Amino acid sequence: MGEFDLIKRYFVRDPALGVSSDAVALGIGDDCAVLNPTPGMQWLVSCDMLVEGRHFLSTVAPERLAHKALAVNLSDLAACGATPRAFTLALALPRADAVWLAGFAKGLFALADAHGIALVGGDTTQGPLNICVTVMGEVPRGQALLRSGARVGDDIYVSGTVGDARLALEVFRGTAVLAGEAFEQARRAMECPQPRVGLGQALRGLATSAIDVSDGLIGDLGHILQRSSVGACLAVDALPRSAVLASQSLALQRECGLAGGDDYELIFTAPVVAREAVRQASLNCATPITRIGHIEAEPGLRLADAQGQALVAEFSSFDHFKTS
Amino acid sequence: MGEFDLIKRYFVRDPALGVSSDAVALGIGDDCAVLNPTPGMQWLVSCDMLVEGRHFLSTVAPERLAHKALAVNLSDLAACGATPRAFTLALALPRADAVWLAGFAKGLFALADAHGIALVGGDTTQGPLNICVTVMGEVPRGQALLRSGARVGDDIYVSGTVGDARLALEVFRGTAVLAGEAFEQARRAMECPQPRVGLGQALRGLATSAIDVSDGLIGDLGHILQRSSVGACLAVDALPRSAVLASQSLALQRECGLAGGDDYELIFTAPVVAREAVRQASLNCATPITRIGHIEAEPGLRLADAQGQALVAEFSSFDHFKTS
Repeated sequence: MGEFDLIKRYFVRDPALGVSSDAVALGIGDDCAVLNPTPGMQWLVSCDMLVEGRHFLSTVAPERLAHKALAVNLSDLAACGATPRAFTLALALPRADAVWLAGFAKGLFALADAHGIALVGGDTTQGPLNICVTVMGEVPRGQALLRSGARVGDDIYVSGTVGDARLALEVFRGTAVLAGEAFEQARRAMECPQPRVGLGQALRGLATSAIDVSDGLIGDLGHILQRSSVGACLAVDALPRSAVLASQSLALQRECGLAGGDDYELIFTAPVVAREAVRQASLNCATPITRIGHIEAEPGLRLADAQGQALVAEFSSFDHFKTS
Repeated sequence: MGEFDLIKRYFVRDPALGVSSDAVALGIGDDCAVLNPTPGMQWLVSCDMLVEGRHFLSTVAPERLAHKALAVNLSDLAACGATPRAFTLALALPRADAVWLAGFAKGLFALADAHGIALVGGDTTQGPLNICVTVMGEVPRGQALLRSGARVGDDIYVSGTVGDARLALEVFRGTAVLAGEAFEQARRAMECPQPRVGLGQALRGLATSAIDVSDGLIGDLGHILQRSSVGACLAVDALPRSAVLASQSLALQRECGLAGGDDYELIFTAPVVAREAVRQASLNCATPITRIGHIEAEPGLRLADAQGQALVAEFSSFDHFKTS
């Protein structure tokens, strides 16, 4: 199977399938895709590269790997409140394996269709497994949710639950034990994150800042604090956890929840006066949210336990080039 | 050096440097870049992934590698007649080597600045060396040059010269010999292709179809023929060659020129009545072009030598998953 056959067989779709979008004037098959930006909208772009052993284990099913590669990018659009429009996929493969490719395409298009986003181009080459997705989306001019808008007194929220992906990783590492459905649930969180695209859009005009949790809640909240020139106090034991994680030791719960990463939930801030509107936004898109702290003027992040006592803790976010 | 330090040190620029573009509302540093499409323009996107050993040799200098990674993407914009606006860079690196990164950033921004295109986002991770660039550009609505517009009777042109990149590869493979400046010139063609961005834009409204030569002239012209449902006759020995390639055997000249690839010149078609306008466009952007054949109704590609005699030849374009 040649490169062009491979692309045609797995990645160029029957026009009757998938999304039909005014955003795409010309998709796969020329030197560039041709897109139609919506008048009055800004165009948002993000890009993530996934490498075996760093971002996923070799045990992952191709459907889930494709899902995750697109999901982590959709999560960046979600964090900015954008509506997904189009994406490109660059794929380096050790070999053209038909079963693997069919599974990969299935997982990719299932998530793409769920979000109405079209694959418009990309590249396929031979090499160590590497998956690079670039997503594009739109927001009304000036309405992108950024990291820089948090204000003193704002509430801090997080969507869904955090920590399960890290818990699954600990099981794979052999430092935690989960059986049966509990393991499957944690593993699903790691391999099949659900990008909070609907919530991000619902928060336009309400949230003052937002980011998605990819490297760990503390580190990612830290980006908001830094860019907004503020500090925060976080109620550590208020972090929303799954029943599976809640059954683990408190130390592991905190480690996974605060520093786990790979959650792809949204952390966002909003003024206290917007609480009811935020609650309604969450209900409207059927995405649970939890209030976990508030923004303060004093720089830095303070952690408090369930009794309001200060916690001194060392949690480090994931860093791909950290040597220690 | 951590991931964020690395990005900050090498890829986030002093605002006083580089391009200042209305197209970029927000660059590196948030979940997404925020771009401002120009009203009335379409948005063009292309993506290429470069893998060591497939697209470049381990001997290449990092400046040239970065140049090439961006150049091959700019070449796709050129082939569509687009004005470059922004790009993302995803980089998997075995290790964070300061000298390598400084060279890479230097080569990258030199070419980016020359084309007024801003780096707006990306990703950096540890892994086998892999470089994935996604470029975005603009054309006035409906004016993108596509592969599908060639018409019977159109002239076929190619820009610059073809075959030098392949000749350099043959030298690295040990199947050809070049010395001194001749080798340097061929090597520069392979490692530092110059995307024909100015020519592409000058051909808007003149060329009926266009493509860039990445996999080899015959194969890439073949895409135009297929998408335009036409055939062509090519004057093989009219192919523009450098003096270095012209000093090789006729067989090697033909092999490199017709099937070499990695040229990043533009092949395009235009009506006979537009010859003078095409000549002016070429002069205006100081990019030489050569008329090398014409479009015919009969499907397929016919090759003729300098005496007009038909050549039967087997040239195969590069295919990353071809087994034979």
